[in-house]
Amino acid sequence: MSDSTVLVLGSDPPPKLDRLTGRARVRFTDEASLASRLPSADVLLVWDFTSDVVRRAWPEHGPRPRWVHTASAGVDRVLGPALIADDTVVTNARGIYEQPIAEYVAGLVIAMAKDFHGSWELQRQRRWQHRETLRLAGTRAVVVGSGPIGRAIGNTLKALGVAVELVGRRERTADPEFGRVHPTEALHGLLGPADWVICAAPLTGTTRGLFGRAEFARMKPTARFVNVGRGPLVVEEDLVAALRGWRIAAAALDVFEREPLPADSPLWDVPHLIVSPHMSGDTQGWRTALAEQFQDNFDRWAAGQPLRNVVDKRLGYVPVR
Amino acid sequence: MSDSTVLVLGSDPPPKLDRLTGRARVRFTDEASLASRLPSADVLLVWDFTSDVVRRAWPEHGPRPRWVHTASAGVDRVLGPALIADDTVVTNARGIYEQPIAEYVAGLVIAMAKDFHGSWELQRQRRWQHRETLRLAGTRAVVVGSGPIGRAIGNTLKALGVAVELVGRRERTADPEFGRVHPTEALHGLLGPADWVICAAPLTGTTRGLFGRAEFARMKPTARFVNVGRGPLVVEEDLVAALRGWRIAAAALDVFEREPLPADSPLWDVPHLIVSPHMSGDTQGWRTALAEQFQDNFDRWAAGQPLRNVVDKRLGYVPVR
Repeated sequence: MSDSTVLVLGSDPPPKLDRLTGRARVRFTDEASLASRLPSADVLLVWDFTSDVVRRAWPEHGPRPRWVHTASAGVDRVLGPALIADDTVVTNARGIYEQPIAEYVAGLVIAMAKDFHGSWELQRQRRWQHRETLRLAGTRAVVVGSGPIGRAIGNTLKALGVAVELVGRRERTADPEFGRVHPTEALHGLLGPADWVICAAPLTGTTRGLFGRAEFARMKPTARFVNVGRGPLVVEEDLVAALRGWRIAAAALDVFEREPLPADSPLWDVPHLIVSPHMSGDTQGWRTALAEQFQDNFDRWAAGQPLRNVVDKRLGYVPVR
Repeated sequence: MSDSTVLVLGSDPPPKLDRLTGRARVRFTDEASLASRLPSADVLLVWDFTSDVVRRAWPEHGPRPRWVHTASAGVDRVLGPALIADDTVVTNARGIYEQPIAEYVAGLVIAMAKDFHGSWELQRQRRWQHRETLRLAGTRAVVVGSGPIGRAIGNTLKALGVAVELVGRRERTADPEFGRVHPTEALHGLLGPADWVICAAPLTGTTRGLFGRAEFARMKPTARFVNVGRGPLVVEEDLVAALRGWRIAAAALDVFEREPLPADSPLWDVPHLIVSPHMSGDTQGWRTALAEQFQDNFDRWAAGQPLRNVVDKRLGYVPVR
């Protein structure tokens, strides 16, 4: 395997891949050169996972990498029809982002319950204005996404005394963590009583536009919505209409249809909408952890062992168990 | 007991004390009239617990209430030398504030770990600026205050994966919840490794000024400090100096030496200082819960049963077990 070529998409900052020294040729490529360099690569590491060039540039014929690893949890920007159809193995960064994202969502939920935003605005104005806020314990959340990220969010909210209903692609009635996992078709019925609706689903053909006008209409006026999955899971204009029409109380988006969010996007100043730049899972040391994770899998690949975090390319994510 | 008089300090908004109808004369008083009305009262309900008039007006001689209940957790504004010295029973609102305050502190800690403040400032500027933030799990907190509030905070942080050291007045080596509770004298040694220092102690003669120059100097430059106890536990000018001198990374104060914080206080715009108006424990329905709690204790008092939440007046709080 010492003559294998690992092609890395993205070079700023380049990952430290010390453990590949002497075992593989490591080459870096940008978006423009990817297509021409894929045929000579054995492994593709999608380090810049904000790019969707792999989806567009994957060849339908000829030599190509046998293994693609993306340093992200979601694989929607990697998986195009050609890659889905062939026998190249795709792996992802499962295990890196779960706990940070769960912490981030818990923080957003508490921040909205306790009106931190209001307090910080009042602080700017030097105004002492006491308010009564929401007690989190005893409230109800619906978490959409029954993979490791949704589960970490659900468990963290449960630890804070929130009653959690987990929604996944298909129903499970004896789930070891949550007892029951509801199927996506049950979502509408679950939205009514929810104080918190958290979207942490993978972006697939089925989940695109999962939250739109009909879903926001089913939420109660005091409900708050959070999206840490992928932007296109939400019909942004419907969310804006729901917020402007006071049909729901507040929302927080960490992901967007278009990223980076352009400076002239109307989303920046919708009332009661918290915007953050796709960073919920990115904690200090994450790049090192991602590089280590890839190299661990490279060790397995070099030894001919089965890879970890293998994506079911038809489903669009790594199935849980 | 139907001829007993319950004097209520504070009338805005007046508590609903329906269960006392026909069982007691309920009278309301403001600060100015308190001293003249105390001799004719059997019970004093300190509903406006922001006032320190009880401390000042409690009589050294003559008839006075045999029971004082304060709708607060802290009793520092009620307990003066005369009240400590006589045999009037003092009870507090233990049980109402713990969970809300713990949620609030957890939210502050996550908000600081994930730089929510920075994100919201960037949102105002319509700027997409990705940052790496802190993973909470695996960090270390020192929680000062081993009463129910400190314990609720400690348990909530533990549920988020934070390692918690609890500090109380005296050492306990077999604490059922925390294993070990450190004595106040051990505080200095604990501050060095702490990522989070949370002050939730009662204000007593021993704890006044507990956090000053020496304590902030012992914290690491990345440490964050939170005070949800009482303002005078912290030497505010020393905290400001620590923040301005970058000796600690950030702080959040919900309580202050002087409340309401005057509009011209320098505290409003100290860099990396989050100010909120003494509201960490005040969630929707809290006033009803406080009134119910007092009436439950009134039932016991009327029946000649021992009261709940009896304050050790020399210690200045309700001892845990």
